Amino acid sequence: MTLASVTEAHREALAARLPEAVFRPLAPAYLEEPRGRYRGEGGLLLAPATVEEVSTILRFANAERLAVVPYGGGTGLVGGQIAAPGRAPIILSLERMDQIRAVFAEENVIIAEAGVILETLHSEAEAVGRLFPLSLAAKGSARIGGNLATNAGGVNVLRYGNARDLCLGLEAVLPSGEIWHGLTRLRKDNTGYDLRNLLIGSEGTLGVITAAALKLFPRPAGEGTALLVVESPEAALGLLSMARAALGEGISAFELMSAQGLEFLAGTMPELRQPFGSVPGWSVLIELGLARGLDPVAALEGLFVEAAEAGLVSDGVIAQSGGQREALWALRENLPEANRRIGSVSNHDISVPLGALPEMIARGREELGAIDAFRVNCFGHVGDGNLHYNVFPMPGKTRADHDHQRAEIKTALHDLVHELGGSVSAEHGIGRMKVEDLERYGNPAKLAAMRAIKSALDPNGIMNPGAVLREG
Amino acid sequence: MTLASVTEAHREALAARLPEAVFRPLAPAYLEEPRGRYRGEGGLLLAPATVEEVSTILRFANAERLAVVPYGGGTGLVGGQIAAPGRAPIILSLERMDQIRAVFAEENVIIAEAGVILETLHSEAEAVGRLFPLSLAAKGSARIGGNLATNAGGVNVLRYGNARDLCLGLEAVLPSGEIWHGLTRLRKDNTGYDLRNLLIGSEGTLGVITAAALKLFPRPAGEGTALLVVESPEAALGLLSMARAALGEGISAFELMSAQGLEFLAGTMPELRQPFGSVPGWSVLIELGLARGLDPVAALEGLFVEAAEAGLVSDGVIAQSGGQREALWALRENLPEANRRIGSVSNHDISVPLGALPEMIARGREELGAIDAFRVNCFGHVGDGNLHYNVFPMPGKTRADHDHQRAEIKTALHDLVHELGGSVSAEHGIGRMKVEDLERYGNPAKLAAMRAIKSALDPNGIMNPGAVLREG
Repeated sequence: MTLASVTEAHREALAARLPEAVFRPLAPAYLEEPRGRYRGEGGLLLAPATVEEVSTILRFANAERLAVVPYGGGTGLVGGQIAAPGRAPIILSLERMDQIRAVFAEENVIIAEAGVILETLHSEAEAVGRLFPLSLAAKGSARIGGNLATNAGGVNVLRYGNARDLCLGLEAVLPSGEIWHGLTRLRKDNTGYDLRNLLIGSEGTLGVITAAALKLFPRPAGEGTALLVVESPEAALGLLSMARAALGEGISAFELMSAQGLEFLAGTMPELRQPFGSVPGWSVLIELGLARGLDPVAALEGLFVEAAEAGLVSDGVIAQSGGQREALWALRENLPEANRRIGSVSNHDISVPLGALPEMIARGREELGAIDAFRVNCFGHVGDGNLHYNVFPMPGKTRADHDHQRAEIKTALHDLVHELGGSVSAEHGIGRMKVEDLERYGNPAKLAAMRAIKSALDPNGIMNPGAVLREG
Repeated sequence: MTLASVTEAHREALAARLPEAVFRPLAPAYLEEPRGRYRGEGGLLLAPATVEEVSTILRFANAERLAVVPYGGGTGLVGGQIAAPGRAPIILSLERMDQIRAVFAEENVIIAEAGVILETLHSEAEAVGRLFPLSLAAKGSARIGGNLATNAGGVNVLRYGNARDLCLGLEAVLPSGEIWHGLTRLRKDNTGYDLRNLLIGSEGTLGVITAAALKLFPRPAGEGTALLVVESPEAALGLLSMARAALGEGISAFELMSAQGLEFLAGTMPELRQPFGSVPGWSVLIELGLARGLDPVAALEGLFVEAAEAGLVSDGVIAQSGGQREALWALRENLPEANRRIGSVSNHDISVPLGALPEMIARGREELGAIDAFRVNCFGHVGDGNLHYNVFPMPGKTRADHDHQRAEIKTALHDLVHELGGSVSAEHGIGRMKVEDLERYGNPAKLAAMRAIKSALDPNGIMNPGAVLREG
């Protein structure tokens, strides 16, 4: 089947079915994505305010064979929010579905529409003395519907899981226009196939998430943050193991940073205070959230002493105040911005089994060295085995100098990740950027099942065509 | 399409493709289930030892249009392991795929074949100083493949989640015979649709799980157990809320028991020591697992004092030794056996939103009272909103006296659960017992999606036909 471009006649037909407020001007922002790799050519922007309006749009698009590209906060990093060129789609923005429908504090549940900004969920949870733990750099503009559609990760996955793990129920519209009212607050519900998890992470290719029942958590009684210097990635894993034995689930985040990352920060954001006299080769940002009766600063001091005695850490700072905690986190949270200012040749959102991390880091350098001279800023959620392995030009060179090597770099690094049993998309998804990677590295039986499911639920292929799976 | 009965000719054709050891005598146990509601009529028992043998069997069955009923430990409570009458199926037992393939203690991962007994996973985890938290009454005979296929719950869901939450990756054979090698140990992997969670909980209707990569956890440094007397289900919820504020994720289990349950225990198992002079109306079994530096007994004492001051608890015992902890747990763990000895009229594995639990319990009694006089043993995982709401004849009557009322009881209770936003199968699944309930209470859009997925992945309908979805 071939999809059509949306026309003025389609717009008029939809205007007869939908309130005027649904039609919004197509600002340039809807055709852009953060890294500038993909650019949309146009389309009809629709911003429905209710699930019924979303249903009306999908029914119409399905009957008229129009492509529908769901749009959340626009912060995705793999081009999943930008239509492929050559055909004008409906751009379906969830920005007007931005209501908190209900908060059940005693049940630790919040019901939010898809357009709610992630940071708003943080403040809504805090207002009832709870925590919504999903947190990532784009939290100020990312919308929860997009976070769910891409199964977003971030810095608290180690303790609380990714977006998938934080969702109890969904309201969604299937490609047929049928509404699935699945906003359950239940912790246990074994009635049939797991449609919730099928939609989560399907990147808008199987339907549109319009609202979600999300888990809240008690706020830890005490929090603490430390930045500890480790000799190597191996030592970072040893420290993680030691911290887990001592503190169990009390570890909220465990983030690795390299010397290159701190040097990028020093060069691009000199206003950020760096805690060490000389930039350490590797450091780990540890965040603890502990129950009543435990002192996080004392726990971090105890961990430091034990790790120092074992030769795992050589230096460190333990935040003594909220301000100091924020200052340490500012280093980690500004790494993506520093990277943007330097200008990367390529970015790789990879995961490997925990034990294979040191090998990944060492052999990744070798693979790159065989191609050219590069700087590598390798950082991230080491507790999850998830690294952002980003490649930069040497000083004096530009990313344009390496444009011809980008494909070679990607293949070398992704082949290595695959060999080590890892994933070439740990938390960002497939989008349009990694469709070929999925075909190259994905298991054939899983790919066949995915294609069968896509055809079964979206026989006309209207939902986000070309994302995740090649059009066909 | 119509499925055929397996014949001697089929057996001979399979004998040419499979080792002799795969063919085992069909003992009566394969045709029975724990509550005696379903009985199989026969079939060909096959017990493959490798995923390739499973693939051979499914390819053959798919080509010959033979029904395949996967069989784990046989402990399922909804008849999902027993073929519908009228057609001899292949009964595919995973009992010979019972190897632990690998343990990655530092990564907190164990890779187990589907036939591994749940209790074996507990001991394998303990041997490396870790915890595998899935635990339920049938742990001595249930096999992990069946636990995953039914998304089993149990007593530790509150803290660690259900079977779904404990699984990182799967190896499975799809109905086509294709093998999905998805045994990843990754904590983050966003490469495509969530086939893992689609297979988990699909009760053998979409494929056969042959192995799983499962999460292990650090063992809590200190554990403690208490049985606290509460005035009412409302008070139990108040206690839960208070305990969460104080102890966060330290609460491993929070189980409600009624006077009726303790009276059943006293009547059928007088050898079990009951801790209170008179049987309390409601009691809660709390289990804590705390990090280093916290004393679980002191934490329980603190909770008791705080809850007593708030008027939430009126009495209680806190275990002072491992033996006392076991004695308290023995009360909870023997409730199903006591129920069996009494003989229930009907059993209901339900969940409702936490805040609706008291209303469910009160109105359930009213609904039953309008039908006849019954005893109710309502107990279970109140922290998850999950109750086993089981109905018994009055003394002097038998379950047979109420056979004619069973359908009416079920409809009355399930309608109430549905009205309260609950689930009529919290943790046991649909199997063959609740197919009509799913049709009655399930969302039509979700049901349509389920049928489309089933047809897409199993076009000939060979996998566990009639379970979850009506044959069609």
